[in-house]
Amino acid sequence: MLDALLKDGSATEIAARQANKGTTPLKPWIRAAKKLSASHTQAHWRTLIGSGPAETTAQDRLYGSDAQRDLSAYSRNIENYIGTIQVPVGVIGPLRVNGLFAQDDFYVPLATTEAALVASYGRGARLISAAGGCAAAVLAEGVQRAPGFAFQSLTDAGLFTNWVMQEQEMLCAAAEATTRHGRLVDIAPHIQGDHVHLVCTFTTGDAAGQNMVTIATDALCRAIVAQCPVTIRHWFIEGNLSSDKKASSLSFTSVRGRKVCAEILLPADLIASHLHTTTQRMLEFASMSMMGGIMSGTIGAQGHYANGLAAIYLATGQDVACVAESAIGVTRFELRENDALYASVTLPNIIVGTVGGGTGLPTQSAALSILGLNGAGGARALAEVCAAVCLAGELSIAGAIAAGHFTRAHADLARGPA
Amino acid sequence: MLDALLKDGSATEIAARQANKGTTPLKPWIRAAKKLSASHTQAHWRTLIGSGPAETTAQDRLYGSDAQRDLSAYSRNIENYIGTIQVPVGVIGPLRVNGLFAQDDFYVPLATTEAALVASYGRGARLISAAGGCAAAVLAEGVQRAPGFAFQSLTDAGLFTNWVMQEQEMLCAAAEATTRHGRLVDIAPHIQGDHVHLVCTFTTGDAAGQNMVTIATDALCRAIVAQCPVTIRHWFIEGNLSSDKKASSLSFTSVRGRKVCAEILLPADLIASHLHTTTQRMLEFASMSMMGGIMSGTIGAQGHYANGLAAIYLATGQDVACVAESAIGVTRFELRENDALYASVTLPNIIVGTVGGGTGLPTQSAALSILGLNGAGGARALAEVCAAVCLAGELSIAGAIAAGHFTRAHADLARGPA
Amino acid sequence: MLDALLKDGSATEIAARQANKGTTPLKPWIRAAKKLSASHTQAHWRTLIGSGPAETTAQDRLYGSDAQRDLSAYSRNIENYIGTIQVPVGVIGPLRVNGLFAQDDFYVPLATTEAALVASYGRGARLISAAGGCAAAVLAEGVQRAPGFAFQSLTDAGLFTNWVMQEQEMLCAAAEATTRHGRLVDIAPHIQGDHVHLVCTFTTGDAAGQNMVTIATDALCRAIVAQCPVTIRHWFIEGNLSSDKKASSLSFTSVRGRKVCAEILLPADLIASHLHTTTQRMLEFASMSMMGGIMSGTIGAQGHYANGLAAIYLATGQDVACVAESAIGVTRFELRENDALYASVTLPNIIVGTVGGGTGLPTQSAALSILGLNGAGGARALAEVCAAVCLAGELSIAGAIAAGHFTRAHADLARGPA
Amino acid sequence: MLDALLKDGSATEIAARQANKGTTPLKPWIRAAKKLSASHTQAHWRTLIGSGPAETTAQDRLYGSDAQRDLSAYSRNIENYIGTIQVPVGVIGPLRVNGLFAQDDFYVPLATTEAALVASYGRGARLISAAGGCAAAVLAEGVQRAPGFAFQSLTDAGLFTNWVMQEQEMLCAAAEATTRHGRLVDIAPHIQGDHVHLVCTFTTGDAAGQNMVTIATDALCRAIVAQCPVTIRHWFIEGNLSSDKKASSLSFTSVRGRKVCAEILLPADLIASHLHTTTQRMLEFASMSMMGGIMSGTIGAQGHYANGLAAIYLATGQDVACVAESAIGVTRFELRENDALYASVTLPNIIVGTVGGGTGLPTQSAALSILGLNGAGGARALAEVCAAVCLAGELSIAGAIAAGHFTRAHADLARGPA
Repeated sequence: MLDALLKDGSATEIAARQANKGTTPLKPWIRAAKKLSASHTQAHWRTLIGSGPAETTAQDRLYGSDAQRDLSAYSRNIENYIGTIQVPVGVIGPLRVNGLFAQDDFYVPLATTEAALVASYGRGARLISAAGGCAAAVLAEGVQRAPGFAFQSLTDAGLFTNWVMQEQEMLCAAAEATTRHGRLVDIAPHIQGDHVHLVCTFTTGDAAGQNMVTIATDALCRAIVAQCPVTIRHWFIEGNLSSDKKASSLSFTSVRGRKVCAEILLPADLIASHLHTTTQRMLEFASMSMMGGIMSGTIGAQGHYANGLAAIYLATGQDVACVAESAIGVTRFELRENDALYASVTLPNIIVGTVGGGTGLPTQSAALSILGLNGAGGARALAEVCAAVCLAGELSIAGAIAAGHFTRAHADLARGPA
Repeated sequence: MLDALLKDGSATEIAARQANKGTTPLKPWIRAAKKLSASHTQAHWRTLIGSGPAETTAQDRLYGSDAQRDLSAYSRNIENYIGTIQVPVGVIGPLRVNGLFAQDDFYVPLATTEAALVASYGRGARLISAAGGCAAAVLAEGVQRAPGFAFQSLTDAGLFTNWVMQEQEMLCAAAEATTRHGRLVDIAPHIQGDHVHLVCTFTTGDAAGQNMVTIATDALCRAIVAQCPVTIRHWFIEGNLSSDKKASSLSFTSVRGRKVCAEILLPADLIASHLHTTTQRMLEFASMSMMGGIMSGTIGAQGHYANGLAAIYLATGQDVACVAESAIGVTRFELRENDALYASVTLPNIIVGTVGGGTGLPTQSAALSILGLNGAGGARALAEVCAAVCLAGELSIAGAIAAGHFTRAHADLARGPA
Repeated sequence: MLDALLKDGSATEIAARQANKGTTPLKPWIRAAKKLSASHTQAHWRTLIGSGPAETTAQDRLYGSDAQRDLSAYSRNIENYIGTIQVPVGVIGPLRVNGLFAQDDFYVPLATTEAALVASYGRGARLISAAGGCAAAVLAEGVQRAPGFAFQSLTDAGLFTNWVMQEQEMLCAAAEATTRHGRLVDIAPHIQGDHVHLVCTFTTGDAAGQNMVTIATDALCRAIVAQCPVTIRHWFIEGNLSSDKKASSLSFTSVRGRKVCAEILLPADLIASHLHTTTQRMLEFASMSMMGGIMSGTIGAQGHYANGLAAIYLATGQDVACVAESAIGVTRFELRENDALYASVTLPNIIVGTVGGGTGLPTQSAALSILGLNGAGGARALAEVCAAVCLAGELSIAGAIAAGHFTRAHADLARGPA
Repeated sequence: MLDALLKDGSATEIAARQANKGTTPLKPWIRAAKKLSASHTQAHWRTLIGSGPAETTAQDRLYGSDAQRDLSAYSRNIENYIGTIQVPVGVIGPLRVNGLFAQDDFYVPLATTEAALVASYGRGARLISAAGGCAAAVLAEGVQRAPGFAFQSLTDAGLFTNWVMQEQEMLCAAAEATTRHGRLVDIAPHIQGDHVHLVCTFTTGDAAGQNMVTIATDALCRAIVAQCPVTIRHWFIEGNLSSDKKASSLSFTSVRGRKVCAEILLPADLIASHLHTTTQRMLEFASMSMMGGIMSGTIGAQGHYANGLAAIYLATGQDVACVAESAIGVTRFELRENDALYASVTLPNIIVGTVGGGTGLPTQSAALSILGLNGAGGARALAEVCAAVCLAGELSIAGAIAAGHFTRAHADLARGPA
């Protein structure tokens, strides 16, 4: 394969391309300022256009009137600001959700550049609402930060672990002193040789909470370092056991962010009228798809949670990188009486907030207001809406593939009428 | 845990919340039009504001002058269009890449709403450039679509498989007749009981290519159905073995999209001056972090590829949902002579294009032009830049954690000067 | 590939081979008797020799004097008894273990048919003992049985879960009434749509305990069924979330059986004298091997725990099928001062007992007596010895590969002196 | 948890237990001899009894008349020989297999110490035979050895890979010169930074073949080292990408050993008469069990392949440690017309041979003769029998759990009539 990629290059020529050619003549980028300013942004563009391939049209597009007007709104969200990317938003709904926290007919904004995504999720939403809505429930909550500590020996690792378990109350107080909304709900030690990973789990109110838990755990660690009688060889605020930004099967038996289920029972006639297929075809697809997922070595078994989650995360100001961890779970289809189809989705790792992060930015806050979920009090309901959206997407894609329409839908919408 | 979530509700009250309450009184959303129009968008807003919680300020923000002006640009990217989300963009660089295809000092636009991300990646980029740049190489290419076929028996599954292997040339022609840029490079059958999954791998030129491979594979399947002498019980265009939109360990020994490596050798003095730590601390962190990643059941072992990939995918018009599959790989740190640090990243699943998808949209195309990589001929170089960005991010986060600065950096940039 | 396997067969001929040819003319095997008897075994042999390809020499070998004499000893361990397999046993040691529970110089019996295994583990044991022994510690205990319950809805699944959490004391009493040694230490519910998996974790004293926890959990389930006010659609004693007989990454953050670590610090001169290599070579191998393991999609990262565990499980009467779950974990090698090598193994899923199962059988009990660990009180120490044996094996194989001796050792011992 | 384990010990006391206490006074075990001899074994026992806790009864049991008589038979299978472990063997069957290679009514010997295992698999075998037998097919073959090479840079790694691809014929000749039965069928390079893993896949005739592929790959590596123009920094015969002795999801899309399927279509009346349950109950269990398996983070989704494989591997002289890798796969149950149940198993990693390893030992060879599969020509059929046995086990355990008999069966057989 590499061979084909390189068919023109001699060994010498290839080596020359990848050789270190010394330092760049270009000035290193200025360091991040704590406050964005129009003059900094102008300076950035002078550099980009002067030293790089960009032309002034790029500046015009990225740093247009909105981007100039809203500059100060982004001060706690970006560094080295040069403007904004604009991503088109489509809306689906009403999506009826009978949740523990979300109880409404929702219009859901989805931001994406992929044709057919909004149309497909919209079709699923119509089907769910036609059946009276889906049930949904947040089942567990918790965000982790997992510092790691190294010792002289396994013995010391054990003694440290015992000490931490005895000092939980003090450590909890140290952590919670840093936050109004965060609560430390669990400290779980995991010994590995002379290392100890402490998985600290917090609830974070209506914020997604990653920064909150970092700051609180840092305080906890400093309390440990100050008081622990066991010699610590070295420690790190994160030892990579928290699964931050990474899909992990660990989530299934714990939780990261919020664990949410949504389910629906669909009569056969709705499957016929909305998806143009049958319950049996849906089940045949589910059987093949489940097996394909398992054999491919993915975590969980589902169709395309990532599509819906990325679109709703992006629209509502969530951390889109968290799609990497959130887009796991299990979709289950089963036959029920009278050829009805039972469908459920279970997502153990929904990371959303309705305060903090990007949720207060101009367009993101507006998108949250379409859901009626901006600000305090909305996070659990938003998590349930995310699961309902994923359920809509699973039903629609399965229906499209079962009916043999999947390719045509994509071809039509992506390639336009021509 | 559920218990705590529900502390106020009786069983009856909880059941009532989740009960099916019949169909919504709201009108189902109108179906996706093939062409966006201002009048449709206006109608959408009337519904949102009339029937939902949204107010006119939401319309003003999401459907401002740019969103109105660019409406027609989005016709092949969105349905039910109501405006645009604006995501702030920061820039890092110059990032010197000595790649097989990317050979330049790149300014890299990163779109995110997460404070400290751009600052952190920028620091990594400065370090890489100070060391003369990183080597990078696209090592393999291929995008999959994996239809599934069901038969009467394992015997028929075997006979089908043999027939397909004999008819590869014909099937290849059928698939490639649908596309100018796509090439079918492999058909790999996987029998599972009476099912056969055919993993069809294509190269897709400078496009990310998911639609291209769907359409081509659909043609291949129809050729099979028309000509295969073995009775097919049923078939689906995708049987979930392609890992589309899902992280999968399968990618490590094959490829999905592009497999890319980047590497650098860092002298100890640069680690001191740029990261304020030592090679030994970096290695201690790497050892703990590697183990934490393995124990958490993630695929591969790395720090936070998702952050950099989401930001560059978003800025350059890639499919952000693909972060779910792309953000896997392995980061390796090793000690070399004179306390130098060797660092490499290997990402088997970079899904990027420089044509198609969202890459031609107004702001996305502008962002690609900052890299000098818009249009045909840029995709391999863009993939190498993605790997270089991930390398920058791995070095920077490891440095921040090793130096004990991780928490402070996030606290400062996220919480502002106050 | 299939093609090559079938190169001689036409489609018709292949189909004929796999066609259903109706029922066998042979009499179905007699059902399992509760008590073994010599006459039954004689009858089995008459059938085998009369209806099958076996000859009397097979009977002579499998059902020799020992197998005849010990027949009654196997009554609770086998059905349809026809004799015994004899597996050669080698011994290694003394292996000095400085454990929390195992504190001795152990001679360890290993049963295997694979040449070089005993020699290799023996070399590792000598090295460990030359360094003063390895530390070892059982860190956690617990065996799971995980019944699954299905309901009419997600709502009922939630109400059931709340009820179970409130009735833990009653359920615990029901479970523990069935056993003298088992203690129910945790009931963890996991909701998935309208399903609830209850992961019940027990400590099981000195028994491996799988039957004990099945019987206790069955009683717990019957108490639920008798008393739970929520309608249960159906339930099963195991819903496959216990990881029984299956490697699972879940074990890393919980435990199955016993979680055990062992570690050692090896001076450079011992690596030279015992392994004929250097610390640096060992670390280079560890780096490559760790990455290879991660890229192959295995659970954890280690060399060949399965070899040592299978050999000691087989020798000491453990359930050898548990090697499938036990042979996971992480091996960590690190550089320490003066070129010393730190090595540790962490195994979260050691399933061993010193009472029950096959531990009391004639030869198995004798093998346990070589360790001094037969009978009550030995299980924790045995688990630590297992970890120490795995550490010996990891050091020896890494040393052999690092020194370039791996192939020769296998060639010499497997192919014999000729 | 650790806390509870240590409830009696002070920190000082715990540390004392795990402290290094210097070297053992016991003499290190004598090194492995190339040839076993009775005098060596006698010497071993003198040491065990003189320096360890073992008594003479242990010697009497382990080193009885058979073990003494057969000593020389074990010369290429064990080192430091002290006798034999005897494992009881039960037989099931006739198991009708309509395979590509196995076409017979088989009596299958299973060696285990676990009560109910033989009875359960026997029940599944009767059911399969009553339905006319199961279809079975070896679908692919190949055993891997995966050496790893380290270079000065990613560039050199790429150049090396290109060179290897060009020299495949020469390398193949070098490898195959070492073996009569092994064929090198693929060399797949995997670049990871400056490392290259070469996955070399061989067919190995009727041997399991691990030693064969090690020796052949070693020759291949030495040819590389002798002739490759790219500077190799270091290399190892195995870089842990072969999945040797480790469950890996990689196997699903390739093969390790032999990939085998078995399937059957069971009429509803046979499920009623043999399993005392219904097709619907079986499917309800399958749905819950599949999801439980997925959520537990196991590889594949199945019930208890490990039990059947361990028992048949042990009986027939296979490498029992390979159960760690072999016991993965997928079991699929589906509803078919007239309430028939379709069931299939797919195992991508069956490692068996009928020559070499332990297959020629006295009792193991006798057990193979019961199957009629000892010696050359039997390996593919044996692999199909293994899959058929696993299918029997999956049907029987699912039936027992679905019928609610699982606990009672284990309680009755394990605890005996008392």
